[in-house]
Amino acid sequence: MKPAICEQFGIDFPLFAFSHCRDVVAAVSSAGGFGVLGGTAYTPEQLDQELSWIDDHVGGKPYGVDLIVPARYEGKGEDLTMSDLAGRIPDEYRGFVTELLAAHDIEAEEAPRFGNAALSGNTGKDLLDVAMNHPIRLIANALGLPPDYMIKAGKENGVPVAALVGAKEHAVKQAQAGVDLIVAQGTEAGGHCGEVTTLVLVPEVLEALAAIGSDIPVLAAGGIVTGRQMAATVAMGAAGAWTGSVWLTTEEAETAPYTKEKFLAASSRDTVRSAGRTGKPARQLVSDWTQAWLPNEGGQKPLPLPLQSMLAEPVVRRIDVLAAQGHPGAQALATYFVGQGVGLMNKVKPAREVVREFIEDYVAATERLSNSLPD
Amino acid sequence: MKPAICEQFGIDFPLFAFSHCRDVVAAVSSAGGFGVLGGTAYTPEQLDQELSWIDDHVGGKPYGVDLIVPARYEGKGEDLTMSDLAGRIPDEYRGFVTELLAAHDIEAEEAPRFGNAALSGNTGKDLLDVAMNHPIRLIANALGLPPDYMIKAGKENGVPVAALVGAKEHAVKQAQAGVDLIVAQGTEAGGHCGEVTTLVLVPEVLEALAAIGSDIPVLAAGGIVTGRQMAATVAMGAAGAWTGSVWLTTEEAETAPYTKEKFLAASSRDTVRSAGRTGKPARQLVSDWTQAWLPNEGGQKPLPLPLQSMLAEPVVRRIDVLAAQGHPGAQALATYFVGQGVGLMNKVKPAREVVREFIEDYVAATERLSNSLPD
Repeated sequence: MKPAICEQFGIDFPLFAFSHCRDVVAAVSSAGGFGVLGGTAYTPEQLDQELSWIDDHVGGKPYGVDLIVPARYEGKGEDLTMSDLAGRIPDEYRGFVTELLAAHDIEAEEAPRFGNAALSGNTGKDLLDVAMNHPIRLIANALGLPPDYMIKAGKENGVPVAALVGAKEHAVKQAQAGVDLIVAQGTEAGGHCGEVTTLVLVPEVLEALAAIGSDIPVLAAGGIVTGRQMAATVAMGAAGAWTGSVWLTTEEAETAPYTKEKFLAASSRDTVRSAGRTGKPARQLVSDWTQAWLPNEGGQKPLPLPLQSMLAEPVVRRIDVLAAQGHPGAQALATYFVGQGVGLMNKVKPAREVVREFIEDYVAATERLSNSLPD
Repeated sequence: MKPAICEQFGIDFPLFAFSHCRDVVAAVSSAGGFGVLGGTAYTPEQLDQELSWIDDHVGGKPYGVDLIVPARYEGKGEDLTMSDLAGRIPDEYRGFVTELLAAHDIEAEEAPRFGNAALSGNTGKDLLDVAMNHPIRLIANALGLPPDYMIKAGKENGVPVAALVGAKEHAVKQAQAGVDLIVAQGTEAGGHCGEVTTLVLVPEVLEALAAIGSDIPVLAAGGIVTGRQMAATVAMGAAGAWTGSVWLTTEEAETAPYTKEKFLAASSRDTVRSAGRTGKPARQLVSDWTQAWLPNEGGQKPLPLPLQSMLAEPVVRRIDVLAAQGHPGAQALATYFVGQGVGLMNKVKPAREVVREFIEDYVAATERLSNSLPD
């Protein structure tokens, strides 16, 4: 008999794979797991293209879409244009970044550019509408309570809605708001994360949900890059694992070669939880960029969502390009969202192979635990 | 057949319980686990008394002793007296503490008192000699490489030597130095801890040890207060669990009633990794004391080992007494070493009952994981 989560999502193995790369999503779903495309950085038109490609390559297997529609952000409810928002980035911050770049032998661009306000929730509804026009089997919101329109669209289309949480109090609120799946994400996770570790958070969330009589499934996330870690969380009561970092060093991932090298060489202690990219604490490779912002001692205080990413993302992308070309200052500044599990990511592999290894390692861990009991 | 770790230590269940309380040590060992007395705060005479009491109450069951003999500390090799060391605490720091207390309606004492230099390694050898005169089955060093005399004494007396590590690089060094048991302690642990979480650290340490051909057993530590979490780490390859926080709310623990209440009410997010107690990052309840020191924004920079604890401990003990009496300022300042697992500690129980629940929960987790595989 398959576990309930596998029946619910039509999969063989409850390994959920978050990726910005459609090839990874299709490969994981094809291999019996569940691929989830991170859609926030796309325009609605681009997202439609990506999902159409997945539809053509996933052979009818289930997959999902993840959006970041924050519950709170600068300018919410004010109907601002992008340039209105950009106008709220203080000159002092433009100056700070210019100086930081100059100290790394990178000239500022003549006209300051700002990224789009992807993390403002302004485009969330449009992206959701696009996603719902594809045969997705999951829609996830990665930051805070999903907006009402997401929960409503999920119910209307029969698509389960997932939410990522970093604290038990948030899990309770999500369950009460009507989400169908909780992803309990520990502090070791890449990207936005809370302070509680996966090993503590998962049982804490399960206990808190049980206390309100909720039995919605909980996926464990944060630091999970091997089947043995996934098995660990299932032993604690998780229904399966939600993963992200491990796919960044797959053959399919669009990660730049220079960045892949950095990941393969990094240990778990080379990441830091910094608000220097988006304004909310997010785990990433430590670099001169992360060290320039609080909570690092003497760092600049980051701006709120979505202003910090509007300021940071165009610069980070320029840095990435220069770093890949061998620019030493850019290499010192370059960073990338990744979890502590990066310390266990030591080889580039096809995504299908990663799924296969997860399953084998999971089975071995199950046997190891069973064998630890006296006969 | 029992697991190898149980054979090696003569126990039924590989649950190691660190406690400053002899009653907890004796109760856990009597119940089939392995109690470890934290001996650093004692004088040699006091430690001898405590161990004699355990010898009388443990019914021949195995137990161990844990010391903190740091590899590096202020004044190492200089043969300083306590007052020499106290003289190295800058007046500015005395003033800072006096002001912090005054801001909480606590008057400074007329003559500043300083704690003994327990964390200096100066008394480690004497304590070790005392411990070796008792039938201990484990000697652990909780911070850095054990001194040579500890490894030598362990070998001479046939007592395995354990070391706590928070990073894989440290585990490799410990194995090469000849320790017999590694405790891989994640950042969620109470007291001194590194940055890597237990879920990532345990497989990382096991992989690093395998890479140098070492097969010494690894206990998992950090955040573990239930059998399901212990099972999670054994599924990943740990030989068992090393626990601390969970014993603080047992009936036997000498934890002050006021502090026990604080623990029972705390969630996992009420702890912080702060160097404000000892000069090295250590997880504890967040309070106005921890917030007064770096890395909290605008906090004072802590002094190095052992100066910070010489400064802090007498004050913290005064605060504890006042807090227990209901002093509001002291209650805001009071802190206590405890891990994130405090969020799962919700009831005072006898230590024997905690061991029993661990075993039941461990068995249930094993069955849960086995049942997750398709037949």
